[in-house]
Amino acid sequence: MSSRRIVILTEGYTNPSRAKTAAGVLRYAGDDVVAVLDSAKAGQTAQTLLNAGGDTPIVASVKEVAQANTLMVGVAPTGGKLPTPMRRHVLEAIQLGWTIESGLHDFLCEDEEFAAVARESGAVLKDYRKNAERDVAMRQGLRAECLRLHTVGHDCSVGKMATAIELARGLSVADVDAKFVATGQTGMMIEGDGLPIDAVVGDFISGAAEKLVLENQHHEAVVVEGQGSITHPCYAAVTLGLLHGCAPHGVVYCYEMGRANIHGLDHIELPAIADSIELVLANAVPPCRLIGIAINGRDVSDAEYVNEKECVIEAHGVPAVDVYREGAGDLVKAALKFREAGFGAAT
Amino acid sequence: MSSRRIVILTEGYTNPSRAKTAAGVLRYAGDDVVAVLDSAKAGQTAQTLLNAGGDTPIVASVKEVAQANTLMVGVAPTGGKLPTPMRRHVLEAIQLGWTIESGLHDFLCEDEEFAAVARESGAVLKDYRKNAERDVAMRQGLRAECLRLHTVGHDCSVGKMATAIELARGLSVADVDAKFVATGQTGMMIEGDGLPIDAVVGDFISGAAEKLVLENQHHEAVVVEGQGSITHPCYAAVTLGLLHGCAPHGVVYCYEMGRANIHGLDHIELPAIADSIELVLANAVPPCRLIGIAINGRDVSDAEYVNEKECVIEAHGVPAVDVYREGAGDLVKAALKFREAGFGAAT
Repeated sequence: MSSRRIVILTEGYTNPSRAKTAAGVLRYAGDDVVAVLDSAKAGQTAQTLLNAGGDTPIVASVKEVAQANTLMVGVAPTGGKLPTPMRRHVLEAIQLGWTIESGLHDFLCEDEEFAAVARESGAVLKDYRKNAERDVAMRQGLRAECLRLHTVGHDCSVGKMATAIELARGLSVADVDAKFVATGQTGMMIEGDGLPIDAVVGDFISGAAEKLVLENQHHEAVVVEGQGSITHPCYAAVTLGLLHGCAPHGVVYCYEMGRANIHGLDHIELPAIADSIELVLANAVPPCRLIGIAINGRDVSDAEYVNEKECVIEAHGVPAVDVYREGAGDLVKAALKFREAGFGAAT
Repeated sequence: MSSRRIVILTEGYTNPSRAKTAAGVLRYAGDDVVAVLDSAKAGQTAQTLLNAGGDTPIVASVKEVAQANTLMVGVAPTGGKLPTPMRRHVLEAIQLGWTIESGLHDFLCEDEEFAAVARESGAVLKDYRKNAERDVAMRQGLRAECLRLHTVGHDCSVGKMATAIELARGLSVADVDAKFVATGQTGMMIEGDGLPIDAVVGDFISGAAEKLVLENQHHEAVVVEGQGSITHPCYAAVTLGLLHGCAPHGVVYCYEMGRANIHGLDHIELPAIADSIELVLANAVPPCRLIGIAINGRDVSDAEYVNEKECVIEAHGVPAVDVYREGAGDLVKAALKFREAGFGAAT
């Protein structure tokens, strides 16, 4: 059990799409969380506002939560800066000597005021995206017996991390020694290890991804969290570096039903799912197979979802499931079958 | 005319493939170079050892070149560290108060000894790869009238920078206001501007590339230097981020005849040229066309080259030329024709 007693800071951002980090940590490491902080929403619960976290209370200030020792910045906005309304809460927690966990591109430890106050109080500033990765990929030494799975998708914020976690946990339940490999700040906050691939310098992205596999391939299976999408105007570099570096035997493709345009770039249409899958496989290190599809149907009716699911299974010949609706059972079964069949290499 | 009077440091690395930076600067900014430094090769000429630079002498120490004011590190090895034998020369030049120009991933200005001596002497430590790029791509605001060209290829070190420079210079001679857009340290050392795309943090690679286009699209044409290759195990992330960010109307594909395996990763085969071109176009922002091919035939006979050239033109239906053998004339003509035809968008 972790000794962290976390308050998640979402000031002004307390909804599931803007506070993705908060929602993910509440869902998958919720036992460590004692409160969520948003001064305008105090008195409500995490479940109501973030769709995760049950009765975890929303509080107005760090001072209300004497039993906590960690303030976690619960957002990771585009560009990666700390939203201004959050600043006073961070400062207060630093003054109390708490650990501050952040996944922002702008590092708390490089903020002069934060650093000075932390030196006084003994607070630890933990910047998950800070890294000095300098390994280039070698595409050597991969253990043939370790099944490498990877989640990819058509856009950001469609469930690639959740699907990877659910798949790894499901494999573990099925007695496969499987490891969720975190590649982003939220996954790292949940899992306690991993690397922030999108914060690694260009030349070393694939090397960092490869290193994550090399370090974890003593497990029977690794499930590597995906980032962005292969066609994303901002983040495809990270997606491809990761796809090359972790060299998956199988990918699970994740998409959200009804999403027509790129998250945050409304003037750009998303590609058709079939084209997007084809492009992922064309870019992957062969042999690589599509083993399942994770449909995110958060904004559609059950009838619409069921209809979509049937069409997708028919079109792609692999299991498809909404992990949030039905759990990852069908994907776990697909992974077990793929493993029994020798990872598709021979077929 | 530049006020730089450069000594290029290649100590222990004085051959064209290991001292790529030196060879490129000698070829395209040679007027600024007064000497090349390699203590074991002193007395010879740059042309003999680096295949560029004519009579530029090789010297044994910075002290022999009183008229110089700049020491340029002439290599950029994998991983980006300063080779140990170069250290004493860098230190000597810093003591003399020179400007030190480096394209290494490891920054000279962060080396404690170098920084301390530079503070004493007033030497400037100029790290070309140091950057704080934090713009995400928006894929907006691109000027439709500015022709965007981009060089891509099957591997590193095949001539993508040289082809881009030759093409931009050739277009200028043909009265098109064309700008070479440097995306790597050598190109930046030659052109005096640009961005070190492979040293940008993952999330901001496409944004940095896009910014380069936005800043230069007042020209009639930009020719954006390519990096790595779309299948490169180490560097494809950079390649794709750049391809997305500069959104070329046309690409020139560069490859070296006879190269079977990846430069520095001899256990991995290169893809077939046709497959590689297809993958570039599949990943590019449409519409994007192949407009020409640059064959690097440095290791083959004229007869072999002529035969290859005919086959390539036949197979791909575009002009093909060895820029080093014949100049970029045929590529310039292809670009002019592409421009007159409306960048291929309507056809």
